Amino acid sequence: MTTARDKAVVLLSGGLDSATVLAMTQDRGLDCHPLAVDYGQRHRSELQAARRVAEAAGTNLKVLKIDLRAIGGSALTDDIAVPETEGEGIPVTYVPARNTVMLSLALGYAEVLGAGVIAIGVNAVDYSGYPDCRPEFIAAFEATANLATKAGVEGRALRIHTPLIDLTKAEIIRAGSALGVDYSLTVSCYQADEDGRACGRCDSCRIRRAGFEAAGVSDPTRYSSP
Amino acid sequence: MTTARDKAVVLLSGGLDSATVLAMTQDRGLDCHPLAVDYGQRHRSELQAARRVAEAAGTNLKVLKIDLRAIGGSALTDDIAVPETEGEGIPVTYVPARNTVMLSLALGYAEVLGAGVIAIGVNAVDYSGYPDCRPEFIAAFEATANLATKAGVEGRALRIHTPLIDLTKAEIIRAGSALGVDYSLTVSCYQADEDGRACGRCDSCRIRRAGFEAAGVSDPTRYSSP
Repeated sequence: MTTARDKAVVLLSGGLDSATVLAMTQDRGLDCHPLAVDYGQRHRSELQAARRVAEAAGTNLKVLKIDLRAIGGSALTDDIAVPETEGEGIPVTYVPARNTVMLSLALGYAEVLGAGVIAIGVNAVDYSGYPDCRPEFIAAFEATANLATKAGVEGRALRIHTPLIDLTKAEIIRAGSALGVDYSLTVSCYQADEDGRACGRCDSCRIRRAGFEAAGVSDPTRYSSP
Repeated sequence: MTTARDKAVVLLSGGLDSATVLAMTQDRGLDCHPLAVDYGQRHRSELQAARRVAEAAGTNLKVLKIDLRAIGGSALTDDIAVPETEGEGIPVTYVPARNTVMLSLALGYAEVLGAGVIAIGVNAVDYSGYPDCRPEFIAAFEATANLATKAGVEGRALRIHTPLIDLTKAEIIRAGSALGVDYSLTVSCYQADEDGRACGRCDSCRIRRAGFEAAGVSDPTRYSSP
């Protein structure tokens, strides 16, 4: 049970999923504190989108900067081409330990705020082979978090909320639309241009476009090519 | 069992403990890759010390920069005075989720390197009330790490080594001295000056000084006041 004054840290990427998580978490009555992690990603328009989404929700975005390019290992932060066709197994767009790092930073922020909830838009349906999007990973991180912090030591449990974990992209879009999320503010594309226009061809664009079609919701995404 | 070619990421702070961990991990025959995290700490001389320690060990230091000051919450990164007397409970020098963040970054680096070991100098004896220095926290993080990564998914287990966990400061100093660690290169002080000279008064200085005394090893620390 949560009360109206409980605080939540909401990981916000600027994409469709996390914008929906923010709306869902506010809808539960939680006082939301969005956190964006600037990890040296190519698609910096994501961060601009995160700012727009946070502002539209009447919240203050905190941005933490960390240069994950220093350790390399992913097409999203290195100079490896982003694939435009679906491959098998774990994609090269995988960022090493990405969600572990994001959740750790959210944990630090939650501890400072005294927040009892961290909300993250991981999804096990459209998860594209990322191991750190699975429910068993989230459960293990939650257990770790409760051993890591003052709050845990003092018996105040921290919960990781993953409201999208079992939803299809279409279900996410329908839920967010019902809560009034303006998806034109969000950017999902792995290689959006500086104005936030999507390529329409990468994995993320194709999943998003298909989601709007399946949801029967008009797609507000701005594409750089028709 | 590890073979001579196995890689380890070693978290290196520039302090006495992590310099000892690096020597112990090399002594086990592991190919060591030290990682320092520049989290906006006051005592930047720590990072200089980490560079000296890594170089003396014939290793290449990777430095990852993250500004934890942005989320606040600790005397080590904020403008709160460092306490010079031992208090009760969790000290104000606690950095929120510090070891969770450090281990997460080490996990990302380990994944890129294909390293099967992360070594960290946590200690449950002199742990000063930090919840993320306890064995149960480390065990939980290890379980999380093995669910988070490609290596875990593919069945290659990652181990978190904590060779200091049950050692007193005197035992750590004796072990490191036997392995040839030059402790004059290290800085433990929470408020060392720009030349790396220790204050001699903060918690960390007092624990370190008492450790050398108890070990019967001559203390090579450079103090700013006699």
